[in-house]
Amino acid sequence: MIKVGIVGGTGYTGVELLRLLAAHPAVELSVITSRAETGIAVADFFPNLRGHIDLAFTAPDSAALAVCDVVFFATPNGIAMTQARELLAAGVRVIDLAADFRLRDVTTWQRWYGSTDVKHACPELLQEAVYGLPEVNRAALRTARLVANPGCYPTAVQLGLLPLVEQGLVDIKHLIANAASGISGAGRKAEVGTLFSERAEQFRAYAASGHRHLPEIMQGLAQAAGQDVGLTFVPHYLPIVRGIHATLYGILNDKGLNLQEIYEKRYASEPFVDVLPAGAHPETRSVKGANTCRLAVHRPQEGDTVVVLSVIDNLVKGAAGQAVQNMNIMFNQHETTGLNAIALLP
Amino acid sequence: MIKVGIVGGTGYTGVELLRLLAAHPAVELSVITSRAETGIAVADFFPNLRGHIDLAFTAPDSAALAVCDVVFFATPNGIAMTQARELLAAGVRVIDLAADFRLRDVTTWQRWYGSTDVKHACPELLQEAVYGLPEVNRAALRTARLVANPGCYPTAVQLGLLPLVEQGLVDIKHLIANAASGISGAGRKAEVGTLFSERAEQFRAYAASGHRHLPEIMQGLAQAAGQDVGLTFVPHYLPIVRGIHATLYGILNDKGLNLQEIYEKRYASEPFVDVLPAGAHPETRSVKGANTCRLAVHRPQEGDTVVVLSVIDNLVKGAAGQAVQNMNIMFNQHETTGLNAIALLP
Amino acid sequence: MIKVGIVGGTGYTGVELLRLLAAHPAVELSVITSRAETGIAVADFFPNLRGHIDLAFTAPDSAALAVCDVVFFATPNGIAMTQARELLAAGVRVIDLAADFRLRDVTTWQRWYGSTDVKHACPELLQEAVYGLPEVNRAALRTARLVANPGCYPTAVQLGLLPLVEQGLVDIKHLIANAASGISGAGRKAEVGTLFSERAEQFRAYAASGHRHLPEIMQGLAQAAGQDVGLTFVPHYLPIVRGIHATLYGILNDKGLNLQEIYEKRYASEPFVDVLPAGAHPETRSVKGANTCRLAVHRPQEGDTVVVLSVIDNLVKGAAGQAVQNMNIMFNQHETTGLNAIALLP
Amino acid sequence: MIKVGIVGGTGYTGVELLRLLAAHPAVELSVITSRAETGIAVADFFPNLRGHIDLAFTAPDSAALAVCDVVFFATPNGIAMTQARELLAAGVRVIDLAADFRLRDVTTWQRWYGSTDVKHACPELLQEAVYGLPEVNRAALRTARLVANPGCYPTAVQLGLLPLVEQGLVDIKHLIANAASGISGAGRKAEVGTLFSERAEQFRAYAASGHRHLPEIMQGLAQAAGQDVGLTFVPHYLPIVRGIHATLYGILNDKGLNLQEIYEKRYASEPFVDVLPAGAHPETRSVKGANTCRLAVHRPQEGDTVVVLSVIDNLVKGAAGQAVQNMNIMFNQHETTGLNAIALLP
Repeated sequence: MIKVGIVGGTGYTGVELLRLLAAHPAVELSVITSRAETGIAVADFFPNLRGHIDLAFTAPDSAALAVCDVVFFATPNGIAMTQARELLAAGVRVIDLAADFRLRDVTTWQRWYGSTDVKHACPELLQEAVYGLPEVNRAALRTARLVANPGCYPTAVQLGLLPLVEQGLVDIKHLIANAASGISGAGRKAEVGTLFSERAEQFRAYAASGHRHLPEIMQGLAQAAGQDVGLTFVPHYLPIVRGIHATLYGILNDKGLNLQEIYEKRYASEPFVDVLPAGAHPETRSVKGANTCRLAVHRPQEGDTVVVLSVIDNLVKGAAGQAVQNMNIMFNQHETTGLNAIALLP
Repeated sequence: MIKVGIVGGTGYTGVELLRLLAAHPAVELSVITSRAETGIAVADFFPNLRGHIDLAFTAPDSAALAVCDVVFFATPNGIAMTQARELLAAGVRVIDLAADFRLRDVTTWQRWYGSTDVKHACPELLQEAVYGLPEVNRAALRTARLVANPGCYPTAVQLGLLPLVEQGLVDIKHLIANAASGISGAGRKAEVGTLFSERAEQFRAYAASGHRHLPEIMQGLAQAAGQDVGLTFVPHYLPIVRGIHATLYGILNDKGLNLQEIYEKRYASEPFVDVLPAGAHPETRSVKGANTCRLAVHRPQEGDTVVVLSVIDNLVKGAAGQAVQNMNIMFNQHETTGLNAIALLP
Repeated sequence: MIKVGIVGGTGYTGVELLRLLAAHPAVELSVITSRAETGIAVADFFPNLRGHIDLAFTAPDSAALAVCDVVFFATPNGIAMTQARELLAAGVRVIDLAADFRLRDVTTWQRWYGSTDVKHACPELLQEAVYGLPEVNRAALRTARLVANPGCYPTAVQLGLLPLVEQGLVDIKHLIANAASGISGAGRKAEVGTLFSERAEQFRAYAASGHRHLPEIMQGLAQAAGQDVGLTFVPHYLPIVRGIHATLYGILNDKGLNLQEIYEKRYASEPFVDVLPAGAHPETRSVKGANTCRLAVHRPQEGDTVVVLSVIDNLVKGAAGQAVQNMNIMFNQHETTGLNAIALLP
Repeated sequence: MIKVGIVGGTGYTGVELLRLLAAHPAVELSVITSRAETGIAVADFFPNLRGHIDLAFTAPDSAALAVCDVVFFATPNGIAMTQARELLAAGVRVIDLAADFRLRDVTTWQRWYGSTDVKHACPELLQEAVYGLPEVNRAALRTARLVANPGCYPTAVQLGLLPLVEQGLVDIKHLIANAASGISGAGRKAEVGTLFSERAEQFRAYAASGHRHLPEIMQGLAQAAGQDVGLTFVPHYLPIVRGIHATLYGILNDKGLNLQEIYEKRYASEPFVDVLPAGAHPETRSVKGANTCRLAVHRPQEGDTVVVLSVIDNLVKGAAGQAVQNMNIMFNQHETTGLNAIALLP
């Protein structure tokens, strides 16, 4: 059994990790910490877990975590970087669901996540951390000590664009990612902006001038392309709880390619990427609760613009599910163990 | 393996049955029929099933169904009654998710479901059919040939009121069931009334003067009470996809009872009924996708009125999940096999 | 022109007051205060007001308010009571949209709204304040200096029950008000409980053991009945932005009455109460943005239980619209001036 | 008074026309036809109109329409073209809210709206019809006999792109319009695809390979550009009732321009186009129920890609409101008469 600890289990990625790990046959859930909810039974906090999880939240406790095989950080940005070094030293493997280890370049990290008061706590680990997108880094993940679990937008956008970018099929300087996220992506913090009455019956873009996920996406695409890329990324608030939909645009270098075949081939052996038949439009609900990314590729009016549609559940393939997938790879489990649930439709 | 057939798999109870049965370790999904979609792959119709179910819809076909161990009817009212006799004769057990066999009295059936043109096709089976509420009829279900799977409202309301009614704790002539259902309860028919733009940002009661589920609930409560009951049942359209919430009111004969204890005791050994701690308010989302009914009991201002809150997922405990639970009982499986999924929250 | 001031304009009742008053032909919007947003243009804060209102929020300022004809308090509970005395002394009439002056009995107020630290700041005004339900207190409102604008639930519930209670038609000790409110009723505070991801695709009751609006409703019904009443009031969170729906139950003393006629007669001359034809079910969307309360009365199965359905827009007839209606009455305007907008459907 | 007739008043553009015209001070609503609902009071059909409109639906009747000053067609595509010639001959001016007269080229019309059985019924009127986008065709509208009211997507997209296209600021062959529409845009027909349970908690693109509004948008942009344009248009179903959001992308020919100034100047005298301050993101709810289009222009990372955000209410500026605006222009009213309502927020 894999002995698992979770730091920060009271947010939406936390409860989703709990849902998945409670049903995972090879996992022993050992400790779950929350400073604010210490002593509260997990199932009192998240009533869907009643009858499934008996643990209570405990205060942050290095000793209890140090005996785990793996620790997930389901915390806000800036927490994992203060504790990772010690856990790794104790032989614990670490999967961070936040952004502390996603960017390899500390200057870029500083620009998007730091401040005059906040510097990266362990920049030396940025190079070692493996970016946890199995469709790109599966081999490295097997032996990784520290995994940076990708952001939700970056997962949907990269899986959608990789075949085009890896093979140099589009104008690499004018990529467009128009994406929309369910509100659970904003987390479970008390904020006016994510109140029901601010987000229901309402749609708008945000951060059009620059979102924190932009450098993460560009880093991944640049690595795939072997060169810097130009990307315009516009996220939108979508009045649903779960789901990310990315509509991706590129200008093709060659209109004669069989894009459908290229996509099917690229993902033929991926258990969690599903290329839909030509002409289809993937639905966010078709992956609700599931670890799948579904893609479709279009070339409207036989023109030179390719449109790729990509959907994931932001809390599953965009967060907790991908983290469990990474754990499976790290601990030599079947990659799909504990991740076979069928999406809830409708 | 239990060889399973489904008649009418294109509605919401159909896709939910498919989701549950595809993951059931003891089930072999053998045939699924749909007149309208013959030849279409099930997974093309319901994309959440891609990668999980390879079957295609077939035309209605008695021979294919006759070799099944059990056939589920996920059809509109009026279909199962025309085919049940023949299947039973062939030794196939039948679970009807519609209302054809729920009412024991053919006159009552005629009043609520019949018309001058539509008479019951096999009234002789109404007495044999077992009403599939395991919390009441478990023993009879083990050997049942024909099971009438309860309606969604009746499941939520009966489970909420049974402890009071069975033990004669309330004024049996003035029960109130104020209930609200997610729109998936109305099915997947093309109708103006259930369009998104008619149901979103909107709430209203309907059928206040009498809903088809009323006689079903009254029959169940009368049996529990050993006498006729008086019930006012007002259903409402709730702008969510899944979930039923019933708020139940009764006038207590005795204010001195420990209602919390009474409820906990009544359901202590029930795997799918969860009595919440005193003071709690069950949430529909805490059972989304799960076969659980969660209950809470209140006595506001220490008065003589008891309030019971009851939630289920109308497509699971209110339909497909309860049907699988019944199948498990009928075929000597553990009652919870295939029904252990944790609800999706948020 | 009526010179109007608003204290606390950054919540949902505030923006709704602004929407209504900006279009009111007899109103001069003079000052709007907000401690937190001082200096911000109102239309930057609420973009729907762009092009309609030029004011900026100002710091709380007694002098500016003292020259108004009327001041609306769109503030949390506990603010108006600290400023009302001074404004009244300056000859300014006051309409409080919060609960500071709704309960006549200071002990009851203390129990539901006070605390060991919080005592009522001007209990001597509780007797003078006029409860602003025009359908009951129109005459007193004409000359009122201080108006306590009713709560949203209390408006919907009282308008629904008044005909029964005033005329003694029901068992006055066993009234039931099962009500559901759109989430905007919870205000625009940053709280986890009202986040989109906590309230969407979700339904539950709350405060079943006692909600602050209970004593307000009971006070109003007791006055109408001429005796104390017994009421069970269970509110629910409804996943819509605007709208309250109350489903009201009573046990009739006499089954022979023409309830439809009684309701139509009671409200025949009320401009904002609309009794629907027999058999109808009022929709929350039919009053969205409008100051109307729509009612329907049912007697299911010709039994002894009456069911009344009542809908309002919680921000209009349940708050800002009713406040403007009260202002119209106080300042001798046509009662419907500025309140004629048709509800937005769909 | 302008004597107004409406053909086909039972859809969402119909009820919205009724809402606006009932409150229009210069309009006398004379006749409203519906084959299916003949004899039904309009206010029984749309309860928000109770107390505001006394008319009943009448059977289609040329004589009654022939005495109107203007007739609105709020009908499906293909109806107005069969009746326009006769009405125009009778001296009645016609505003078609459907697509019968939007495309000037009959071959293009035939390709997108026709079939082997359906040919255009009066192609000779295609040249005379004035495309009812006042921001482009105001002068021609004053004297127009026949107005083709623009589609909802085309209104949002054209208003967003016009300043760039008119002034040749972008690569005219690679425009992208990523748009999302509230479900009311799909109309009030009984269809499985627009059921609540198919559209709630769900997001997807549709018609990525070609949507009927594409040729309409391209015709308008080509006219503005003075040359053919290349446009990729991907619409999405948005799980809200009202609202269109377009996110528009273009590659700038010159990065040195002050785009904010260009937009503000272009629309400085337009009563219904609101250019937000730099950095803003328009919200669909800020125009809910209002005839306004709000725009914002961005140039992310100071690059060569411009992003324009455009929102309208699809039923108002995208349909009925724009039709009333056109009527005002045609009949020498102030352009804003009857269209001053402030959007409902939240």
